[in-house]
Amino acid sequence: MPDHPLQVTVWGENLHEQRHEKVRTVYPEGMHNAIADALRDGLGSRAEVRTATLDQPQHGLTDEVLDNTDVMTWWGHIGHQMVADEIVSKVQQRVLEGMGLIVLHSAHLSKIFQRLMGTRCTLRWREADDKEVIWTVAPTHPIAQGVPQPMIIPRHEMYGEFFDIPVPDEVVFISNFSGGEVFRSGCCFHRGKGRVFYFSPGHETYPIYFQPEIRKTLCNAVAWAHQPELFSVDTSQCPMTPTGWFEQSA
Amino acid sequence: MPDHPLQVTVWGENLHEQRHEKVRTVYPEGMHNAIADALRDGLGSRAEVRTATLDQPQHGLTDEVLDNTDVMTWWGHIGHQMVADEIVSKVQQRVLEGMGLIVLHSAHLSKIFQRLMGTRCTLRWREADDKEVIWTVAPTHPIAQGVPQPMIIPRHEMYGEFFDIPVPDEVVFISNFSGGEVFRSGCCFHRGKGRVFYFSPGHETYPIYFQPEIRKTLCNAVAWAHQPELFSVDTSQCPMTPTGWFEQSA
Amino acid sequence: MPDHPLQVTVWGENLHEQRHEKVRTVYPEGMHNAIADALRDGLGSRAEVRTATLDQPQHGLTDEVLDNTDVMTWWGHIGHQMVADEIVSKVQQRVLEGMGLIVLHSAHLSKIFQRLMGTRCTLRWREADDKEVIWTVAPTHPIAQGVPQPMIIPRHEMYGEFFDIPVPDEVVFISNFSGGEVFRSGCCFHRGKGRVFYFSPGHETYPIYFQPEIRKTLCNAVAWAHQPELFSVDTSQCPMTPTGWFEQSA
Amino acid sequence: MPDHPLQVTVWGENLHEQRHEKVRTVYPEGMHNAIADALRDGLGSRAEVRTATLDQPQHGLTDEVLDNTDVMTWWGHIGHQMVADEIVSKVQQRVLEGMGLIVLHSAHLSKIFQRLMGTRCTLRWREADDKEVIWTVAPTHPIAQGVPQPMIIPRHEMYGEFFDIPVPDEVVFISNFSGGEVFRSGCCFHRGKGRVFYFSPGHETYPIYFQPEIRKTLCNAVAWAHQPELFSVDTSQCPMTPTGWFEQSA
Repeated sequence: MPDHPLQVTVWGENLHEQRHEKVRTVYPEGMHNAIADALRDGLGSRAEVRTATLDQPQHGLTDEVLDNTDVMTWWGHIGHQMVADEIVSKVQQRVLEGMGLIVLHSAHLSKIFQRLMGTRCTLRWREADDKEVIWTVAPTHPIAQGVPQPMIIPRHEMYGEFFDIPVPDEVVFISNFSGGEVFRSGCCFHRGKGRVFYFSPGHETYPIYFQPEIRKTLCNAVAWAHQPELFSVDTSQCPMTPTGWFEQSA
Repeated sequence: MPDHPLQVTVWGENLHEQRHEKVRTVYPEGMHNAIADALRDGLGSRAEVRTATLDQPQHGLTDEVLDNTDVMTWWGHIGHQMVADEIVSKVQQRVLEGMGLIVLHSAHLSKIFQRLMGTRCTLRWREADDKEVIWTVAPTHPIAQGVPQPMIIPRHEMYGEFFDIPVPDEVVFISNFSGGEVFRSGCCFHRGKGRVFYFSPGHETYPIYFQPEIRKTLCNAVAWAHQPELFSVDTSQCPMTPTGWFEQSA
Repeated sequence: MPDHPLQVTVWGENLHEQRHEKVRTVYPEGMHNAIADALRDGLGSRAEVRTATLDQPQHGLTDEVLDNTDVMTWWGHIGHQMVADEIVSKVQQRVLEGMGLIVLHSAHLSKIFQRLMGTRCTLRWREADDKEVIWTVAPTHPIAQGVPQPMIIPRHEMYGEFFDIPVPDEVVFISNFSGGEVFRSGCCFHRGKGRVFYFSPGHETYPIYFQPEIRKTLCNAVAWAHQPELFSVDTSQCPMTPTGWFEQSA
Repeated sequence: MPDHPLQVTVWGENLHEQRHEKVRTVYPEGMHNAIADALRDGLGSRAEVRTATLDQPQHGLTDEVLDNTDVMTWWGHIGHQMVADEIVSKVQQRVLEGMGLIVLHSAHLSKIFQRLMGTRCTLRWREADDKEVIWTVAPTHPIAQGVPQPMIIPRHEMYGEFFDIPVPDEVVFISNFSGGEVFRSGCCFHRGKGRVFYFSPGHETYPIYFQPEIRKTLCNAVAWAHQPELFSVDTSQCPMTPTGWFEQSA
């Protein structure tokens, strides 16, 4: 058991909730607070959860916050271009230094995800109340533990292949959409010393982050993305290793 | 261009065609001949295609045939247990020595596939005229080249996850079934010096191996599984490498 | 924290120790007891560790032992062919049902490893007191946590590429040998519901399992291979999923 | 056989050759010309090879050149920061649209490689005339076909792990350095519709690009990175797929 709790920062764009009555009805406290509550409920005393939003100074991601975040979750959509490049660079560096990152739904087009992937992260979509069925294809994966097979989202925006991401290091979930598409809806990536998980459920007009199995998955993802002890090698530069260490070693 | 054509052996169990009128109606010449014709049509003079069936001596897989096969395709279902273990061992050895193997549909439970995978290769299924939509998720893969996005099979047996295989080295296709399931329907594996492709379309009561895009995929798969030049190292045993070669090398 | 401790069974062939004075000098209590002590020291009350050996009835792997084992470690060399096929099948089934398996050193040619891999598992080798340097290449992997970069084994048998295994799901360690070879010395595989780790250090004539960093790695491996909660789907057969569940679901 | 030859652009920084007598002695025509000659020799009429260098307008990478390049090779070192961001963006887009990219040696820190990887791409290094032995670990890979096991570079700069890249989609080669390090020296990545290969041999003070087996590997890599037919889906944006296509399809 770690001595001090896992520090989680739930980042939310918080624009739809301000602008659209329909979204506010679903998430009266904002999507970020629904996600934060899911983590508090599921992780209990193992985690300390704070939120941060786009409209705050530095989008709520000051150096102090970043330095004290073990895992960050990121939901964004219409505000991707409003996120300052400097902040994106800092978040990327934190991931490469070991911070976990959970990228949610429409954040597939966020600057931070595109930076970490190196690809366009485009996909097919349709807002048409598709039924989504989420299947576990990696039964040994920590993120799948205790998750029902399958999970069902009664109505959701369709996200479909081809999803322009690098081949994931682990594909945990694949979704069926009633309109005929499939989607790699739960994907793990390792970048530098950090772990990244993309999880596609979470369109703003449906109460998906209140579904117990989705909340369970979010908790599993945060726990997985956290590393109690980080790789000790400094990867910020290229160290010159002198000759002879090998011969002199035990 | 290789000097001599790619030698393909299409192995078919050929039991349903003998026993079931419905299957004979769909495949009057047998499924193996439909597959062989697809390869002949698509690969032309690049390939020489022969067939072999369960009822032949040694199931048609004599040492001479095996030694002269670059790529084998395998369709089986109700006769898995009738395949002699000795023949299975020979086919496995040939794959490990570089022969390509295309495993089709219900052959997921064949002895040869289970041997090469090390797992149970079980899956969900349902015979209910599901529509199957096959999506390419590996756009750079040779097997996907020129294949439409998506391919549609109007009516098919459902095969669904969890499919108990090792994590594929490359997932080329993922299928949506209208009944709500998903399936990794095109999966590549590298075993020893050989390449293996599992492709799930092909239930015996539907004319799937006559669909042009399925035939195109079969041709791509055979071409991909063939290696004009094999890895030169003998992997049949563990060579003792004497000390000093390193110092003496250039 | 799990309610009850992780049950570990350390399986040792225990032949070299009986037959060779040199090995007995290095491992007076047997290699299996050195490994078991390493796990007891490192995992403390988190684990209960028992041993089993080839000469026992059923090689010490009765149904009761197997059913009560969360993670098994396996060291064998000259006795591979003395292990009964029936026991190998039982161990394989247990892995596919979720038991972790740590395969050590010369057990690359064990029946259980070959069965799970589907390949020959051959490699190059040389007994010539090479120095081995083990480098972490997967910094986010739980097995690498807290392991020094690099680990050094002053004198060891060389194991070199090509190692005839399937592409590992995760390569954690790669070794440099002073004689010029490289080796994927720490490899993870997922098979069915179980996790498998191959770790190459541990030739019987060197006190490698007494090295603190090797012991640390063994503990990490056992902890990683254990899953507190297993995937709930029964993979022992192919379930027929009736039509309509999808439409009737929420 | 493709109707028209594969168009290759060999990009070279061409600074060391201008500035350092030692490098000019090894590569009197410039490194880019040595690489171009290797490709012309090995690929013959299958390829048309041109070169481009940093000092040219737009670094020689005009839209016309880019639009007519199937595969690009990239060698850079001390001039990484002199490459215009706009050109890097164009090259990245071309890769995502299907152009192959071969990244050589010190170009691990090039802007284009870091952009495509999303990580720092740092590594250990030492200039000390290490002997490098390059081992094939992916015997079925097209880039390894006909390459000796092992390849030996008599004297080379050491590049060692941890190499801060995403987990490669395929690791083809791993190197042993006589000073004790290992390195994943041949790594494939799939990004968008394009194939990327990183190959570490090629320090400017050694005649490595004149070694026949290295030239063979370069030719294999270029041939592998080329796709005669590209994935037909437009990935430049997220297409909205209307409802009903599925029901209306055959």
